[in-house]
Amino acid sequence: MSQYVFGVDIGGTTVKLGFFDVEGNLLDKWEIPTRTEGEGSQILPDIAASIQKKIEEKKIAPETVAGVGVGAPGPVDGEGVIHKAVNLGWGIFSIKETLEEIIHMPVMAGNDANVAALGEMWRGGGQGYHDLIVVTLGTGVGGGIIVGGKVLTGSTGAGGEIGHIHVEDHETEACGCGNKGCLEQFTSATGITRLANRKLKASDANSILREGEVSAKTVFDAVKAKDTLAMEVAQEFGKYLGNGLASIACVVNPEAIVIGGGVSKAGEILIDYIKPYYEKNVFHGSRNVKFALATLGNDAGIYGAAKLVLDAEK
Amino acid sequence: MSQYVFGVDIGGTTVKLGFFDVEGNLLDKWEIPTRTEGEGSQILPDIAASIQKKIEEKKIAPETVAGVGVGAPGPVDGEGVIHKAVNLGWGIFSIKETLEEIIHMPVMAGNDANVAALGEMWRGGGQGYHDLIVVTLGTGVGGGIIVGGKVLTGSTGAGGEIGHIHVEDHETEACGCGNKGCLEQFTSATGITRLANRKLKASDANSILREGEVSAKTVFDAVKAKDTLAMEVAQEFGKYLGNGLASIACVVNPEAIVIGGGVSKAGEILIDYIKPYYEKNVFHGSRNVKFALATLGNDAGIYGAAKLVLDAEK
Repeated sequence: MSQYVFGVDIGGTTVKLGFFDVEGNLLDKWEIPTRTEGEGSQILPDIAASIQKKIEEKKIAPETVAGVGVGAPGPVDGEGVIHKAVNLGWGIFSIKETLEEIIHMPVMAGNDANVAALGEMWRGGGQGYHDLIVVTLGTGVGGGIIVGGKVLTGSTGAGGEIGHIHVEDHETEACGCGNKGCLEQFTSATGITRLANRKLKASDANSILREGEVSAKTVFDAVKAKDTLAMEVAQEFGKYLGNGLASIACVVNPEAIVIGGGVSKAGEILIDYIKPYYEKNVFHGSRNVKFALATLGNDAGIYGAAKLVLDAEK
Repeated sequence: MSQYVFGVDIGGTTVKLGFFDVEGNLLDKWEIPTRTEGEGSQILPDIAASIQKKIEEKKIAPETVAGVGVGAPGPVDGEGVIHKAVNLGWGIFSIKETLEEIIHMPVMAGNDANVAALGEMWRGGGQGYHDLIVVTLGTGVGGGIIVGGKVLTGSTGAGGEIGHIHVEDHETEACGCGNKGCLEQFTSATGITRLANRKLKASDANSILREGEVSAKTVFDAVKAKDTLAMEVAQEFGKYLGNGLASIACVVNPEAIVIGGGVSKAGEILIDYIKPYYEKNVFHGSRNVKFALATLGNDAGIYGAAKLVLDAEK
């Protein structure tokens, strides 16, 4: 009988690792550097060594470990094959098979954002729900769709790329993905800053935002201080995200929508700006949806990675 | 061992029934009227009687029948419970349990559009694919999303309502669903007619379309005759549908997109107008998608309903 499971979240500079019991209690967590040299060939061996060291340190029998789940920054298909991770220097190969050969226990792998969504469902803001949209508002906009308790991986691992749904025909600047008018361009931390700077340029209105450097944080702080211009920025943000989420909900008919990432630190006020647009434009069959904030922060990835393994065991 | 299966597609005026072998060959099909009186209480007994008569007529042993699949015009959840079908007079009840009690064989039920999508995957335009968007351009716009070979039903059976994704902030007329700016308002047969009439009003340009009543068919006939105004309408249609499908594809990362419904009788030219917008605005990970026309026409529903039963048997 399995008692423990490891969850791993590979980032561009550090790898986060978590040691869990099968109930999802995080017993230990730590980080190791991501060694991207040599096309990232050391990353998986480093992870294996670190986990083996932890098993010895904890004095647990290897057969009590269900396996190792891995979230990686790139599209990962249903077989655990990654289709390039530029940040890591990785091409196309099976994370699952490669790591299993080194570590001799079951491995499951998924896209980092998708896996984080699974984590929020398991032990975070989406707990108790099985059909979820998780949207992560950070430097970019990531996301994960959970359908019937499982991650929607998609045919080539590019499922849940909700930051790149097309929401604006008239955008002239390009998104990081190369397209123009992606949701990410208006609702990421960078996107909110861009909206605010545009508005500051276009008007002479007084605003706290003129007093220092503009960021998503200063915008929502100003909103809380009832700054009119900041509230207009928040309206615009809410319109793009609310309408975008409404469109996604027409497709997947979720029970709940969880908002995470750095921007979500602004708190419930974020939902106050998103929800009216969502409810106005979503199909009535998906109108009664629970909005919640993510609660696991940067740990969502290790939780979800661990859950991938436990789900595969069933 | 099951050898046969029945597929049923309940419409507002007629019920279509199909008798299949388990390979998906349609051996017989017929229709009965939909008796909506008495809150539609006769519909399921009528279906049961008609199937029992067919079993006798075909002289097959009831135990060789895998069961009966049903597509119904309303949201049907994963347990076979319909959440209202206004056209039939139906409230909320289990189609699966109710029909099983009458007919004494396994019953599966789903939303008609979702079930039709499954039919197109099994034996129609989406054959060979397992991750699909099927969009049906008729009086309205219906759809079905297939993920890993299974219908995306959603938490309350409202999954795949892609006709109601929000694509236009500036629309002033209301969609049938009550919202404004739904995909359906621009890409259904009615929507295309609306776009054409708006354009005819707004300009004095010559057009074949001024010669008679405008419909989706006359618009695409005029496009084939290189009518400039009609081609502008087709561009607009293609923009809305291509962009909308791109957003949906960011969410589900399909292998193929199948276009069906009355409008699809226009043929491959439809895809020529949709694809450029799709490819321009979709996330690169979902760019290489097969576009195909639906091939089963009005039979897609009975095929998909039959497939629901066979999938549940596994």
